[in-house]
Amino acid sequence: MTRPIRVHLDSQTWKAPHMRVDADAWNQALERHRAAAAPMTVSFGQDWQGVDGALADAEILICQSKPPVEAIQKAKRLKWIMMTMAGVESLLPLDWLPAGVALTNNSGTHYPKTREFAAMALGMLHFRMPHLATAQREHSWSPKFDSLITGKTVTVVGFGTLGQASADAAKVMGLTVRAVRRNQAAHPLADAMYPPDALTEAATGADFLICTLPLTPATRHMVGAAAFDAMKAGGGGGVVNIGRGPVMDYDALVERLDDGRISGAILDVFDPEPLPKEHPLWRQKNLVIVPHMSSDDPSTYIQRTLDVFFQNLEAYAVGRSPLVTEIDRETGY
Amino acid sequence: MTRPIRVHLDSQTWKAPHMRVDADAWNQALERHRAAAAPMTVSFGQDWQGVDGALADAEILICQSKPPVEAIQKAKRLKWIMMTMAGVESLLPLDWLPAGVALTNNSGTHYPKTREFAAMALGMLHFRMPHLATAQREHSWSPKFDSLITGKTVTVVGFGTLGQASADAAKVMGLTVRAVRRNQAAHPLADAMYPPDALTEAATGADFLICTLPLTPATRHMVGAAAFDAMKAGGGGGVVNIGRGPVMDYDALVERLDDGRISGAILDVFDPEPLPKEHPLWRQKNLVIVPHMSSDDPSTYIQRTLDVFFQNLEAYAVGRSPLVTEIDRETGY
Repeated sequence: MTRPIRVHLDSQTWKAPHMRVDADAWNQALERHRAAAAPMTVSFGQDWQGVDGALADAEILICQSKPPVEAIQKAKRLKWIMMTMAGVESLLPLDWLPAGVALTNNSGTHYPKTREFAAMALGMLHFRMPHLATAQREHSWSPKFDSLITGKTVTVVGFGTLGQASADAAKVMGLTVRAVRRNQAAHPLADAMYPPDALTEAATGADFLICTLPLTPATRHMVGAAAFDAMKAGGGGGVVNIGRGPVMDYDALVERLDDGRISGAILDVFDPEPLPKEHPLWRQKNLVIVPHMSSDDPSTYIQRTLDVFFQNLEAYAVGRSPLVTEIDRETGY
Repeated sequence: MTRPIRVHLDSQTWKAPHMRVDADAWNQALERHRAAAAPMTVSFGQDWQGVDGALADAEILICQSKPPVEAIQKAKRLKWIMMTMAGVESLLPLDWLPAGVALTNNSGTHYPKTREFAAMALGMLHFRMPHLATAQREHSWSPKFDSLITGKTVTVVGFGTLGQASADAAKVMGLTVRAVRRNQAAHPLADAMYPPDALTEAATGADFLICTLPLTPATRHMVGAAAFDAMKAGGGGGVVNIGRGPVMDYDALVERLDDGRISGAILDVFDPEPLPKEHPLWRQKNLVIVPHMSSDDPSTYIQRTLDVFFQNLEAYAVGRSPLVTEIDRETGY
């Protein structure tokens, strides 16, 4: 029998309890994967205490935030860092990551919740809920009628877990889906694929745009005036951002919400978060602010995350590379 | 060949143009139904002008509001009045309707739009949008997380077109549906059926309640404290009313929105409409006000309504009774 794989798990006590990778969470996941999993020796830490000692012999680190760089660089046996989140922009650039150490995220975890959120968000834009929220603040009875959402078109920008979950919701509702993605291979949830540099074309005449982009140097303000102005103006449609705040140009969006070219927007991500009390977006008309709730399901979050870990572990155990949800050092996602 | 059926259509110019039964609308519908329809002689009027003359020989009247009673009582050949709406509470009681004259509504017309609205409303309650709208007014970042909507339970009160469309949406989203309906026959969209006097039982432990009741003397304030207090308290759930305002006890609802027993509500119907500017509901916390937009699709409204007329006409032409969407004189719907 081969030597057990040495795994260290670190939890951050300032993070929500449902996200922690403590012994309880680990044992619950192990129960489901015991048959498939390789033999492991496991240790647990909090807030990076004792990480130097743990990484003296650990091969795999599972953690919730960027590890202390010095500890990582001294960890001679380390082969793989598994992050318990999807967006790893806080770890970029990856120049601190030693060659030969793989970095994975929990891609896939957020699918079911995001699918439900996207369905709601599309419905809300179709039924003019951002406009109605503004009207309600003004005590104004102001109906605006549209036909059915079935048959409308949505442009989904970014086509990973969040994008595919959004497309899944849209297809169930009878929409046409245009996907903007680097990888141009056909996808069953997309009626058409566009590369990132054809974003404006992808948005042309679309009723809805859902942005699910990760934040990388290449995606900052990627969705802005050009995409907005290509969309169908007015009507029961609009813009959703569930990626990261800075990937969308909110100043350009605000201008178009003010003059009605974009009928409504639903934003789930901001910079910074929480959005400060005095931020003008709170008062913006035709805008619904969601406090980063579109994708996390606390009751399943850490178990679904550990399921992704065990999927990767199967690949790791047989020496496959890249791992299933491995972050590309160039693109940063 | 038999004598053509004499039909008179009256439009009300104070109603929305997309609801009018003018010659254009009629001819467009006739085009679809020419083969099936009986031979007819048709006349058109506006705002009841010339209705006395038209009804001297008309067998069928198609109209948008309660006809002048005197004209109806003198209309010796009249056999059938087709209303171009679903809710006929403005015609009740039906003591003015001569024996032997059938009254039909456009039941079925609102299905596709209502299905989309119900899906959105369930999602909005699940994702706490009424709470978030209140938080946005206060510039407060206040996330509240739930698991998935799949697996939750909705009680649908009233199970005609609006109720079935709501149940249809709920089933697609993976909810369990309890239907409250006089007719207790099993229905493919309902997991359980309850009679009206078991409403409290039907609401017990439910996450959501969607009210689609017509307004009749029997339904006034039918959904109130007892049903609300039977529901699951708090959590990502709540109450929707797309029936008529007075069928729900809004004072009882407001009390529970204030103290949090009901997390949120989405109301589409009020008494009176439009809701007056000074009405306290505009300021109610955890409440989303929709200005009666849940069911009407202007681009298809009158054509779908006339499709219902032609369905009824087939039954009428062969002497079937009651007609397909005939209003029951006792229940008033």
